[in-house]
Amino acid sequence: MNEFGFIDMIRQSFEGIGEVGIRGIGDDCAVIPLDASSSATIHPGTPCHPAIEGESLVVTTDMLTEGVHFLRRATSARELGAKSLAVNLSDIAAMGARPVASFLSIALPPECRGEWAEEFMAGYRELSARYGVKLAGGDTTGSVSGVVINVTAIGRTPNVNLKFRAGARPGDIVAVGGTLGESAAGLRDILAGRFDTANAHIHRNPAAQVSEGEWLGSRAEVHSMIDLSDGLASDLAHILKASCVGAEIDLDAIPTTVPVELAVTGGEDYKLLFTVASERWDTLRNDFRKRFGAEPHPVGRITEGLPKILWMEKGSPVAKNWRGFEHF
Amino acid sequence: MNEFGFIDMIRQSFEGIGEVGIRGIGDDCAVIPLDASSSATIHPGTPCHPAIEGESLVVTTDMLTEGVHFLRRATSARELGAKSLAVNLSDIAAMGARPVASFLSIALPPECRGEWAEEFMAGYRELSARYGVKLAGGDTTGSVSGVVINVTAIGRTPNVNLKFRAGARPGDIVAVGGTLGESAAGLRDILAGRFDTANAHIHRNPAAQVSEGEWLGSRAEVHSMIDLSDGLASDLAHILKASCVGAEIDLDAIPTTVPVELAVTGGEDYKLLFTVASERWDTLRNDFRKRFGAEPHPVGRITEGLPKILWMEKGSPVAKNWRGFEHF
Repeated sequence: MNEFGFIDMIRQSFEGIGEVGIRGIGDDCAVIPLDASSSATIHPGTPCHPAIEGESLVVTTDMLTEGVHFLRRATSARELGAKSLAVNLSDIAAMGARPVASFLSIALPPECRGEWAEEFMAGYRELSARYGVKLAGGDTTGSVSGVVINVTAIGRTPNVNLKFRAGARPGDIVAVGGTLGESAAGLRDILAGRFDTANAHIHRNPAAQVSEGEWLGSRAEVHSMIDLSDGLASDLAHILKASCVGAEIDLDAIPTTVPVELAVTGGEDYKLLFTVASERWDTLRNDFRKRFGAEPHPVGRITEGLPKILWMEKGSPVAKNWRGFEHF
Repeated sequence: MNEFGFIDMIRQSFEGIGEVGIRGIGDDCAVIPLDASSSATIHPGTPCHPAIEGESLVVTTDMLTEGVHFLRRATSARELGAKSLAVNLSDIAAMGARPVASFLSIALPPECRGEWAEEFMAGYRELSARYGVKLAGGDTTGSVSGVVINVTAIGRTPNVNLKFRAGARPGDIVAVGGTLGESAAGLRDILAGRFDTANAHIHRNPAAQVSEGEWLGSRAEVHSMIDLSDGLASDLAHILKASCVGAEIDLDAIPTTVPVELAVTGGEDYKLLFTVASERWDTLRNDFRKRFGAEPHPVGRITEGLPKILWMEKGSPVAKNWRGFEHF
């Protein structure tokens, strides 16, 4: 049973428990409507954008375990503190929301309880301060083996700004918020013992697109969004499945400095992947550039048909059997 | 640096980051007001009960690590699944709120990914269904050492029902919601290899007072509340410190079947500890009995003065230097 199989099992067996107003497993965040009147409108699984009044909280959680997600000798405590929060802020951004609070649980072996823990918190604090995210609670405990970190982050947004995986429409431009694959290449460097490469630094210090996500949330022409944590091949597939559409991706258009297979299958980019009404693309791109001083990259388009990715090279389809990165 | 020292360090260094509307570290849950108008009213650290209109979400998180909080050979996966959620529902109850959603992160070593994981989820599901708590998200990952579980739970309540640690007043009756110390005695049994005792069963299957907490939240004569996770000596001290009051506790009145020192210093009872306006005590006790078929136990009273516990035996003070259980 892989990670997604286990999650599907859980999703099915928990169906029907609890309130219908809360939209749960299956997007970057759960959505909790703040006013009772909207509870009836955001049903779990509703495959469309709920353009309604009111606000929602969005909630996400991520666990990082030593030896699986990081090696203590290959990262500084300060970098790890920032990254633990960054990966969650990336999920909040992917919903089009603004992060407001986080909760940190950390299990520390004895040798990490002094300076290491303080450095970790310094990194966590720095990123919290940058985006005004309140550390609202948590849990600290001992560990008889490695460091384990769990962060839960909460964001807030007007319902009309919420972006789901399920909103992509045929004809949409598929775009990414930055270059891909450097993080995966950096992980390879780290696993080969080369901790000081530029890509290794990118892997340890992901720049979550927090402001970009909130801004894209405010744009009605953005129809769907997700963050790239498992690679474009895997994360775009989530959008396609949720939206019942296909996609053509131009491999020549993937923004990367590493081999393109690694760029579309490697994990932990933490860039935004989103789809945009094609007639509004030029406007969106220009406004994005004015606001952030960088351009989003168009990499393909949404098509009618089966939820599959057609990879294109020099205008022609090429057969690839690429899958994303799996942590499990 | 012990657990509380580390938390104090974090609290200080993060002060001033984020919105003042969110009340964070220092109670059983963080409090997030649902309407903007109440943001200005629930300040972090306000030492009184905010009797205002509107609703809030309350959020809590707890991490359980193998070898520290549990031994896999001494608990069934199903028991552990239920307990992981129960300890969080207990925190929600202690705020006077009703649990609505949970988020589960779990790191699983290879040998736990099949039947063990399914049994764990069955236990988690059973308790979720009992109280209508939606599993709204989570994270599953591998582990190169033991099982690690993190649960974040979210509750909801009218602001007027919120109970804080800071509300105790001189003259209040101090009460507990059930018998104490059996869980700690059960932990001793387990550590001695005796897994089948009645107390070991209580330790593995805590009955969080979910309905009792929501009901006590609706009673204005309940001035403060906390759940007993680290023992009365430690948890009552949190109420005293937050409320700037003292307490006298009658050791003869502690409801327990184990030695009284273990009953007031042992952890993981997950019973509610609360203080009640003395002139309303008889009414509250009778209504509680009618509603739940059991009585809360008065164990002492809140006094003016330093935030310390005066232990009493047969009507006279006795010197004790008892501290609660620390996980760190």
